[in-house]
Formats: sequence, structure tokens, C-alpha cells
Amino acid sequence: MDLAYLDNYGATPLHPQVLETMVNYLRTTFGNPSSQHSVGDRAAEALAAAREQVCGLINAEEREVVFCSSGTESVNTAIKGVAFALRDKGKHIVTSDIEHNAVLRTMRRLRLLDYQVTSVSVDEHGLVDPAAVARAITDQTVLVTIMHANNEIGTIQPIAEIAKICRQRKVAFHTDAVASCGLVPIDVKALDVDLLSLAANQFHGPSGAAALYVKRGTTMWPLLDGGVQERGRRAGTENMVGIVGLGKAAELAKAEMDQRMSKSRALKEKLINGLKERVADVRFNGHPTQCLPHLVSVSVFGVEGESVMIMLDEEGICVSTRSACAAGALQASHVLLSIGMDFTEAQGTLMISFGRDNTAAEVDRFLQALPPIVQRLRAMSPVYKK
Amino acid sequence: MDLAYLDNYGATPLHPQVLETMVNYLRTTFGNPSSQHSVGDRAAEALAAAREQVCGLINAEEREVVFCSSGTESVNTAIKGVAFALRDKGKHIVTSDIEHNAVLRTMRRLRLLDYQVTSVSVDEHGLVDPAAVARAITDQTVLVTIMHANNEIGTIQPIAEIAKICRQRKVAFHTDAVASCGLVPIDVKALDVDLLSLAANQFHGPSGAAALYVKRGTTMWPLLDGGVQERGRRAGTENMVGIVGLGKAAELAKAEMDQRMSKSRALKEKLINGLKERVADVRFNGHPTQCLPHLVSVSVFGVEGESVMIMLDEEGICVSTRSACAAGALQASHVLLSIGMDFTEAQGTLMISFGRDNTAAEVDRFLQALPPIVQRLRAMSPVYKK
Repeated sequence: MDLAYLDNYGATPLHPQVLETMVNYLRTTFGNPSSQHSVGDRAAEALAAAREQVCGLINAEEREVVFCSSGTESVNTAIKGVAFALRDKGKHIVTSDIEHNAVLRTMRRLRLLDYQVTSVSVDEHGLVDPAAVARAITDQTVLVTIMHANNEIGTIQPIAEIAKICRQRKVAFHTDAVASCGLVPIDVKALDVDLLSLAANQFHGPSGAAALYVKRGTTMWPLLDGGVQERGRRAGTENMVGIVGLGKAAELAKAEMDQRMSKSRALKEKLINGLKERVADVRFNGHPTQCLPHLVSVSVFGVEGESVMIMLDEEGICVSTRSACAAGALQASHVLLSIGMDFTEAQGTLMISFGRDNTAAEVDRFLQALPPIVQRLRAMSPVYKK
Repeated sequence: MDLAYLDNYGATPLHPQVLETMVNYLRTTFGNPSSQHSVGDRAAEALAAAREQVCGLINAEEREVVFCSSGTESVNTAIKGVAFALRDKGKHIVTSDIEHNAVLRTMRRLRLLDYQVTSVSVDEHGLVDPAAVARAITDQTVLVTIMHANNEIGTIQPIAEIAKICRQRKVAFHTDAVASCGLVPIDVKALDVDLLSLAANQFHGPSGAAALYVKRGTTMWPLLDGGVQERGRRAGTENMVGIVGLGKAAELAKAEMDQRMSKSRALKEKLINGLKERVADVRFNGHPTQCLPHLVSVSVFGVEGESVMIMLDEEGICVSTRSACAAGALQASHVLLSIGMDFTEAQGTLMISFGRDNTAAEVDRFLQALPPIVQRLRAMSPVYKK
């Protein structure tokens, strides 16, 4: 059975060129980039080349890119790094209600160490109001962290505006761009952020390779103490094959971005229009225009998203009900609750996310497979009445 | 020019079977093990299989192995994890003078957060006295961390004895076994440690893949907060290809361990005897019998180790002067100073470390190449007088 893989937020298949770059690295190169002999030098060259490729994607300088092992590590490093380093200045952080668990749970952790957190709410589209961020900042605030785009509903936040407020108030600003970097254009200089997180597995690179942009001069502690790798910002022997894959994926994401975005937008439009025609009582979540081009969040009333997902999987169609990172947690999505959905609606929500390999035929398969599944589940539902 | 790579502490070449396992994974499998569809299931199966392989190497249970991105992350997670979780119980930690920078600098970091650290000294062989550890423990002590084997001189510590003391005193015990795990037999149950760090790049697996053994019931915080991966011990999407490589490397290390150890011991003996015959005024560091079988630390009086390393590199022979992790730091090795060496002697120290691919012919090349280099450098030395 052919697979229609429509869960590119969960993981993207490797770009064929990324795959070959990684295989070639594994076959030809080893060595520790910190070693001072010729074998180490070759690894160090590969590391530098990958860093340059990541810089190209986000318009950073080489010394501003810190490689790390996941979007989660990048986010933890940014938030805990600033919070610890500036603990004598203040212990207050501002964030939003719809952040990824990497942010939310880091906040919960810091609260145990006597940090105060203010979380701003969002509107029905999941948008943060920059004025609300401005109001939340106090003279104790050391960091604001607001995600660039939401990973469940795709809404893109007014990051440049929020960054401007933080710059005026002299507060460090981090944006979690894991769900969007490599998928839409991001320029750290234009956004004027201090810290930005990205991960390769969102743009056809490997999992286990990510980066944190750290604007020069930003005061923070490393999360990993030890050797002097990454200019002292992140200790530990580098995941070389992962970083090489991240670099190549970044280069390709930049080169193919316009093309990938147009393709995703067309598939997304086809999917949304098709669903509207074929399934009654559905709602699309997230901002209608300020949103990721490749992601659709749709709430199907009267069904359990998980049942739909499993039944689609039996037909070779992969979608998700929410972030894979939260899949093991038996709770309704905090993002969907935050945009005003009730628990039952939230449970009926599907995420469809496209990658560069998806086709219109796969969208057709999804559009054909879904209606009978929904019909079957609604017929059994105690809550759905047509 | 053929390469004689004698710096297996810096990085080990991938075992051919590890390489093929990783390439095969990259070519055939992708997906996020947390995804609840069939693509995710296949990744989850690969993750479980790798965990089982690591368990086999150290005699752990599956729920006790936490994958992470480097030995450094493993060590940071263990130390900071226990220190933060037990902060209300006490803020005192016991360690030794010859730990890896991942431990030393983590200690320095925790001191900034008002933790107290007692560091026990070592004898001329680099051995920790368990009685000294016992004396250092106070009612404020929450953690003892002593490395299993030293990464620069190879001395293996009496870990089971120290663990017994910690168990009696009800203090958590972590051992950094990054330099030894996969190279000598390690059984976490026999050692009775609470936490143990290991890394794949020490035993012909990839860099970027490591693990922390956490005995069931150990109280600690994760270092990375976010998703529910690794039973809540370590958030973040997994470095799948790295973990798959780590698993295979662990399986092979166990299967080939006796054979690798005998081979290394023979090469080490040949090297030591050859050096004694050919180069005057050398000293071998570390314990003569309680030591790693694959590592030689030799101090060559009257030369700079770095010059020797560079000149050997020009002849296609890779050795190191110290841990690659510290290579960028312009200081004499704290390990060598701790065993009583003066600065000048420490600077003349070479590390030679064997892997499964090394041959007696490579040792011969080293033994032929070194004497003229030493002679040349000594002739220029202002301090060396024959």
C-alpha cells in the first residue's frame, strides 16, 4: 500500500540530497572537530561549512549560531540560559499561552526556582497582541519568549513588533521558530530578535540536529557545561553527521523555499476546499492569512481525532492529532483550549502538514478516505446530532 | 599516505556494521517515535531495539536508560538533575580533582548557584581513596560524582567501593564512565551506582549519541524540559540515526570486548616497551594495572607535546596531547597537575589511544617516527640537557 504521509510536523522525510550528504559523511569522514590533527581538521571544516549554511538560511553571522541536539534543547538553552545568567537582575519572564511544551514546561520548571512567569493570552486565531506583551513587562523582566509560528494551528506572530518592544525595554527576546524556520523566510536581523530556535527535522533534515541563534553580546549561561565547543555556548562533542545534514537541509530550504511554499499553499487550499465540500461541521483553526503555508488544523465535530487518525493510518494515510511531543500526554491541547475551543471540540482536531514530497493525489486520497470514517464515527457518537 | 590513527579517545572510526546500520536506517526509516501512526511505530521500534542493546552492554533495565546527545549532556543531566531536585535537602556535592571538564565546569556553574563542592585529591597514579570520599560526605551532601576511568591517564577508580559508601550514607552516586564504557566490562548492578554516563563515540559508534543510566527510583530533574520522551527524563525529538548507531555499537562492543581488550593490551605493551627502548627520559602516567587497556599517557621530558603531535601528524600519525574537549583551552592538564606533575612535564605529555582497527605495524610506525622528532625538539630545548 502506498503511503500518503501528511504528518510533516511530526517528522519530515530526509531530502534526497540531505540523505546522500549524510551517507557520504558517514562513509568518508570521522574525527572530532576539536582534535588538533588533520583528521580533526576535516571534521572542523565540515562543521564550519554547516554553520555557514545555517547562517545563510536565517541571515546570521557564524559566531551567532550554536548547534544543539533538538528544538527542545535550543529552547531550554535560550530560556534557562538567560534566566540563570540574569538572576540577579530579575526573575520575571513573559511568554504566551500557546507555546510549545519545551517553553511551557521550562517555565513550570523555573517557577520551582522562584521565577515569576506572566503568560499573555491569544485571540481566537491564536494571535498574541504585542501591546499585551508590553504591559506584561516589568522592571524585573529578564526575558520575553514568544513563538514565531504555532506548531498546532500555524498562526504566525507579529515577532518584529514584539522584538521592537523588547529592544526598547532592554529585555532579551527569544522566539521559538522550530515550527516555521526553513518553511517560511526568516531573517534574524530583520526580526531583530536576540535568540531564535530552529530544528532540522522540520525542513527535511534529520532529527537530533538543531540550532540556537544567539545575537552577539547576549548574556546567557550554557545549558551544557564542559568543553569549549561552540565558543563556550554549548559543550559536548558534536553530532557531526546530524549537523552536516542540518547544514545541507538549510541550504536546500533556502534554495527551494518559494517553490515549496507555493506547492504547500496549493495543497492546503485544495484540502480545505475539499473538506468544506465533503464534510459538514468542520472548523479550520489558526489565522486565515498570517499562517504557515503547509499546515492545516481542522476540528471535526462529533468525532475523536485519535480514532480518525488510527482509521486513516489503516488506509496508509498518516496525519496527527497534535504535536508528537505531546502525544504521550493525555490532555486536550492547551493551544486549542487557548483559542476558545472546548474540550470535546479540541479532541476532534486533526493536523495535516505537507512536505516537499506530497502530491495532489495524496490530498485526493485523504479527501476520499475521510468522509466515510467521519460518518461512521459520528453514527456511533453520543454527542453528534445532524 | 596511510594514516595511523592513534587518537581513539578523540573519536573512534565507526565500526563497519555500525556504519551500515546507520546508512540503512537513513535510507529506509524516518518518522518520529512519538507519532501514533505506523510510520512513528517503526521509529519507536528502532528506538526500543537500540535501548535494549545499550541495556545489554551495562546490564540495565530498559526504563533505566535515557538517551542523550553526548557524554557531556549525560553528565550535566545527572549532576544538575540531582542537585536541583534535592536542593531543599542540601547543596553539597563531592567530586574528585581529575574529573572531565563536563563535571568540573558543571561544579563551577553550581557554585554560582550557592552549591558547595568538595573535591578529593588523588594519588600519584590518579587513584581516588574511597575513605577520602567517605570523609567528604556531610549531612548536606546530595550527590557524589567520581569518574569510572580517567580520560587522560586511564586510571580506573574503585567505583564499587565508593558506591557502597554512598549507599550506606544514602547519597546519590554518579559515575562518568564515558572514557571506559564499551572498552572494559561495566555492570551497573554489580557497581551499584545510581547514575552512569556513557557515549557511543568511545566505542566505534557515532558522536552525538550517548546515554545516562538512571537507577529506578532516583530523584532528579530533567535538564531538558518539554515533551514526554524518555519517560519524562529527557525531552526533545530523538536523534534517531545516532541512537540506532549507539545501539549497534553497544551490541558489538559487548560481543567483541574480550577480543578488543586483548588486542589493545598487546599494542599498549608493544608501545610502552618500544618507547622505553628508544626514547630516554619518558614517564608513563596512570595506574600500572588498574587502567584502561587501550590508552597510553606518556610524558616526554624536554619537549612540547603539541609540537610532537603536529610533527607526527605530518607523517600521517594522529595522537593527541590531551582531551579534545580541552584542546581549545590554553592550560596545562589539571589531571596531570593533580598527579603531581609540574607544568613543564605536563606540557610534554602525549596520549595514544587504540581502537579495534589499529595494528602492530602502526605502532611500529609510531615507534620509528617518534625518536627523531624528540631528538630534534630536545636539541632545540632550553631545558633539556642529556
